[in-house]
Amino acid sequence: MEQVRICLVGAGRAGEVHGDVYFSSIPGAVISSVFDTDIQKAKNLAKKYKLEEKHAFSSFEDALSCYKFDAAVITTQTFTHYQYTEMAARKKIHVFSEKPMAITLEDCDRMIDVCSREKVLLQIGFMRRFDVGFKEAKKMIENGDIGDPLIVKSVGRGPGLPGKWAFDIKNSNGNLAEVNSHDFDSVRWLSGSDYKRIYAVAKNSKNPEIGKEYPLFYDNAIVSATMKNEAFGMIDSVCPCDYGYDARAEVVGTKGVIFIGSLQEYTTITCTRQKGMVSPQVLSWKKRFHDAYIAEDRHFIDCITQNSKPSVTGYDGRNAVAAVIAANKSIQEGMPVDL
Amino acid sequence: MEQVRICLVGAGRAGEVHGDVYFSSIPGAVISSVFDTDIQKAKNLAKKYKLEEKHAFSSFEDALSCYKFDAAVITTQTFTHYQYTEMAARKKIHVFSEKPMAITLEDCDRMIDVCSREKVLLQIGFMRRFDVGFKEAKKMIENGDIGDPLIVKSVGRGPGLPGKWAFDIKNSNGNLAEVNSHDFDSVRWLSGSDYKRIYAVAKNSKNPEIGKEYPLFYDNAIVSATMKNEAFGMIDSVCPCDYGYDARAEVVGTKGVIFIGSLQEYTTITCTRQKGMVSPQVLSWKKRFHDAYIAEDRHFIDCITQNSKPSVTGYDGRNAVAAVIAANKSIQEGMPVDL
Amino acid sequence: MEQVRICLVGAGRAGEVHGDVYFSSIPGAVISSVFDTDIQKAKNLAKKYKLEEKHAFSSFEDALSCYKFDAAVITTQTFTHYQYTEMAARKKIHVFSEKPMAITLEDCDRMIDVCSREKVLLQIGFMRRFDVGFKEAKKMIENGDIGDPLIVKSVGRGPGLPGKWAFDIKNSNGNLAEVNSHDFDSVRWLSGSDYKRIYAVAKNSKNPEIGKEYPLFYDNAIVSATMKNEAFGMIDSVCPCDYGYDARAEVVGTKGVIFIGSLQEYTTITCTRQKGMVSPQVLSWKKRFHDAYIAEDRHFIDCITQNSKPSVTGYDGRNAVAAVIAANKSIQEGMPVDL
Amino acid sequence: MEQVRICLVGAGRAGEVHGDVYFSSIPGAVISSVFDTDIQKAKNLAKKYKLEEKHAFSSFEDALSCYKFDAAVITTQTFTHYQYTEMAARKKIHVFSEKPMAITLEDCDRMIDVCSREKVLLQIGFMRRFDVGFKEAKKMIENGDIGDPLIVKSVGRGPGLPGKWAFDIKNSNGNLAEVNSHDFDSVRWLSGSDYKRIYAVAKNSKNPEIGKEYPLFYDNAIVSATMKNEAFGMIDSVCPCDYGYDARAEVVGTKGVIFIGSLQEYTTITCTRQKGMVSPQVLSWKKRFHDAYIAEDRHFIDCITQNSKPSVTGYDGRNAVAAVIAANKSIQEGMPVDL
Repeated sequence: MEQVRICLVGAGRAGEVHGDVYFSSIPGAVISSVFDTDIQKAKNLAKKYKLEEKHAFSSFEDALSCYKFDAAVITTQTFTHYQYTEMAARKKIHVFSEKPMAITLEDCDRMIDVCSREKVLLQIGFMRRFDVGFKEAKKMIENGDIGDPLIVKSVGRGPGLPGKWAFDIKNSNGNLAEVNSHDFDSVRWLSGSDYKRIYAVAKNSKNPEIGKEYPLFYDNAIVSATMKNEAFGMIDSVCPCDYGYDARAEVVGTKGVIFIGSLQEYTTITCTRQKGMVSPQVLSWKKRFHDAYIAEDRHFIDCITQNSKPSVTGYDGRNAVAAVIAANKSIQEGMPVDL
Repeated sequence: MEQVRICLVGAGRAGEVHGDVYFSSIPGAVISSVFDTDIQKAKNLAKKYKLEEKHAFSSFEDALSCYKFDAAVITTQTFTHYQYTEMAARKKIHVFSEKPMAITLEDCDRMIDVCSREKVLLQIGFMRRFDVGFKEAKKMIENGDIGDPLIVKSVGRGPGLPGKWAFDIKNSNGNLAEVNSHDFDSVRWLSGSDYKRIYAVAKNSKNPEIGKEYPLFYDNAIVSATMKNEAFGMIDSVCPCDYGYDARAEVVGTKGVIFIGSLQEYTTITCTRQKGMVSPQVLSWKKRFHDAYIAEDRHFIDCITQNSKPSVTGYDGRNAVAAVIAANKSIQEGMPVDL
Repeated sequence: MEQVRICLVGAGRAGEVHGDVYFSSIPGAVISSVFDTDIQKAKNLAKKYKLEEKHAFSSFEDALSCYKFDAAVITTQTFTHYQYTEMAARKKIHVFSEKPMAITLEDCDRMIDVCSREKVLLQIGFMRRFDVGFKEAKKMIENGDIGDPLIVKSVGRGPGLPGKWAFDIKNSNGNLAEVNSHDFDSVRWLSGSDYKRIYAVAKNSKNPEIGKEYPLFYDNAIVSATMKNEAFGMIDSVCPCDYGYDARAEVVGTKGVIFIGSLQEYTTITCTRQKGMVSPQVLSWKKRFHDAYIAEDRHFIDCITQNSKPSVTGYDGRNAVAAVIAANKSIQEGMPVDL
Repeated sequence: MEQVRICLVGAGRAGEVHGDVYFSSIPGAVISSVFDTDIQKAKNLAKKYKLEEKHAFSSFEDALSCYKFDAAVITTQTFTHYQYTEMAARKKIHVFSEKPMAITLEDCDRMIDVCSREKVLLQIGFMRRFDVGFKEAKKMIENGDIGDPLIVKSVGRGPGLPGKWAFDIKNSNGNLAEVNSHDFDSVRWLSGSDYKRIYAVAKNSKNPEIGKEYPLFYDNAIVSATMKNEAFGMIDSVCPCDYGYDARAEVVGTKGVIFIGSLQEYTTITCTRQKGMVSPQVLSWKKRFHDAYIAEDRHFIDCITQNSKPSVTGYDGRNAVAAVIAANKSIQEGMPVDL
């Protein structure tokens, strides 16, 4: 296999992020088609990636039959992930699915099963695991540098609300899924343990108009978790977050602490009398995790060409979904929920 | 009143911190006697503050009758605060009581009542409120700089365990009281609202030997709070914390965020190939809040000489105690607790 | 022109940096041949970039005649830059030359002339200009955010000595050329003015054995400059720098200041009692300017495909060389030198 | 000696800084009189420190004869330091003199001589040596943590111009004396060596109106120094500095580097979309070195009561003056100047 041919399944924001990476930064991959139920979006991306218009599809079935490709990069609305995964896998096409993996655990299981049965790869889009800062932290934890993890904290605050379809948390599992899947994964990954019990509270502070139509909608939440190894997890969620994209983590161990990430985008600091010392904050997940997205997508391509297993699996995706579901249940019942 | 005469009620670590401040940094105050049930400790501090040995007492009654003083600085074990407060107040002596104010809300109420009845001042030792960083943050919040507070996070990790008497949480309310009273106060103060509901989990990860004798003892905990104004609070507690004294806070508002404090003690950074970039961490609350302790004690003296009300009241102390009690109840019941 | 074909002229460290970028991160470019007088090095890189061995050359003449290419990326020893530039330009091949542009101003002029005459592009390798932090600083200065520049400081400390050929400063212009060309360019670029007068002192503190053979060799130096617009420049040079690769700048203006860059490689901070707060320092220019190298090389490709002028020109390269020559003269004469 | 009695010699800004420290933070000292040729200033400070008006003097002779005191804290205009030092010393009064010690080396020598002859202490006001960050850096350097110092950089940028008397550099030695004496001392102290050769350039960028009357006046300058142990020194001077009070240092050694100080006043950081991440900058030397001033003044009192030698001597003061004079000579001659 000379170059891995990719079909972008979904031509929205996340589709474009991966598309840009494959197009501009990974010579070993080539985008061969773009699918989106909104054909105009598909065409726009196809054009951006120098494809003829006929490589843009509004039906995934057509995309599958027209131009051969090796891998599907799925970034559509969460509840469709299973369907496209199954269609791809059955054609022996490798699958990269953005987070959240799915809405239900049943869908997660079916995705894992079909990819396993069809012997195709399934990688889930937890790009933080490919960020140098997170990676080094994980390495240090495994190396025992801070002893056993006692408390893992993860901050997940995103500037822009997900699409309207996600306001109904029955459809989407809400912001904890759309925005904070990464945090649920990070707490699990950095603590080295699965979730045992979760307590969460949430409220809608800034979007009363959305609340009228979707009473369960929330735009900020805090989560308290106990892991199976007794480590604690703390997640806070704010979205929309006016001041920027804030993704940081902190791991307290028996012997030390690790702080991961920064709100500062780059290290140019200005000072004037009127404005004080000013640093530019991170405003976008695309910039914050720019290198991580490249490393993540390169990993997917490498796994395909080298026939190795992705380091982020459907099992990881499923565990994050399970935690999100428990957290939403806790929010609604006002009680801790066991997993 | 030329100089305010002070009796140190308690000659342990906290007594010495305040004693040092009054002795070295506040010309308007003079230490006139030292009381501790351990007479040797009292004598040691008396000597340190250039007092003759006869100014050291093992009975507070004797201290009250021997040398006239204007103010009592109470730093004894928590469950004795009420008793000494009452004895002092009845002699028209102003009271500064370290946190936690007391073990029970009944004691808190009785302290407030007796000081009110006797018309003496009652200030509680939440020195963070006098730290320039916390103060400026509070000012900015009140000024609306970050909009309405959505989430207030407070980190309270202390290097050294409290005394043995505090291992039995029935005696002491545990580390959440001894170490994290400050955090409970900060969340309330910075959010601008009282506690409505608290959920907490705790465990004993590093002190199995203490656990044998005191099964309810915990050395790390996380707390999830909902305030009456719907703001959320998150507190984490680690003690003993091997890596230093870590006291930071973070307030997310509808329009922005404020980060308060740093683990870095001072801004001297070294870099060598072997050790990387190294900053000195804060190892002691005495150093971290050195200036805050001076400001706090100066405030107490100023209130006495200017006959004004302390900015940190018995009511503040009581609210922190109430929150700690609720958190401990939540830990034991595994459920959220309403206040 | 579908893809820009590149010949790597020089297969040393810098050749590999650009090779890696073209190979892994710029789909619009393709490496078509590698030249190095050390054929083994050429072969190694050719292999790394999946080229057959016959695409590796030990003669640039052969390289020019065997496989057609559009652009030469010259990273050989400084004194050869002119020669290869001329050979390439005469074949209508675009030239990217690493810094320092050349050893003499005559060579610089000849490089500018031949490229101009042959109508090929000439870009000089000042990658800092493509670093987001430097770029934003330049933008802010031009925007007047800090008023007029008064003092521009640039730190250039590199971990590894250049090759042995560079120890003789008559061959190489010394570390100020090999290591600090970037700083001379930054001071000029950020101050917005050419050099008027330079004073420099240097010494050899860590390499007495080199000093025996090359008495003019220095491994640390400081430079004081006055620009034509009266701004001051300060450069310090340390190489080998044991603790890492330290490239920072600071611009003081009439109204404010800008700090550019950091010694911290990424924002993962660990703290333990024994080691204090530790951040990873930057150890390599490849990592510090990873994104800048990509942006720089992409700019070169874009200029070729879009037929536009590189933003970093031979004129910029020549000015840095002139400043380096003046600084070396000042070091030897102990006097300030006018440009 | 129970309490050290102090006469404030000079009731300007610096006089008030020391007066505040002695009045509010050092119980072992008592201010007994205040002298200033401007009697109103003397009266104001006397009042601030709860002295009766008769303790304020416009003649130092009167001050010396009226109320007995043990120590003189001299903060008057530089060229008067010698005169007051001599008058005090001859009455067996200990002397603390602010920097710069004097205008001429002759005056420095005479101050050293008279204090030595009269057996009174002479301490010079280099408070940075009492700052925890500077002190720890010095300790680490002496401990060999970064090897031998190669380059010492010191930033001295002050917000407010000295008084009008200082505009004429013949009177005052200019900003390099008034603002940067500290930097000249720091470079010497941290490098562990005396000055050998200095080159400096200066200009007047922001104060053309002052320049009309005082053509030698400069408001920004850079200094290049070679120390006797071959270490290099770099100082930059900006005053008035619009953006704050910026006092930082950096020491590069053969094995590592130390960064001292920060422009950030305290660690409260705010972030909003419009303003970015904002920290408060240091605006005043009083705040930046608040604790250092207390430690410095305490040291003076301790030396008096314990009959020990101040750690900052007339010899240190003299060396800074010598370097400033050489730098000014270099500025005027355009050449390096040997010491």
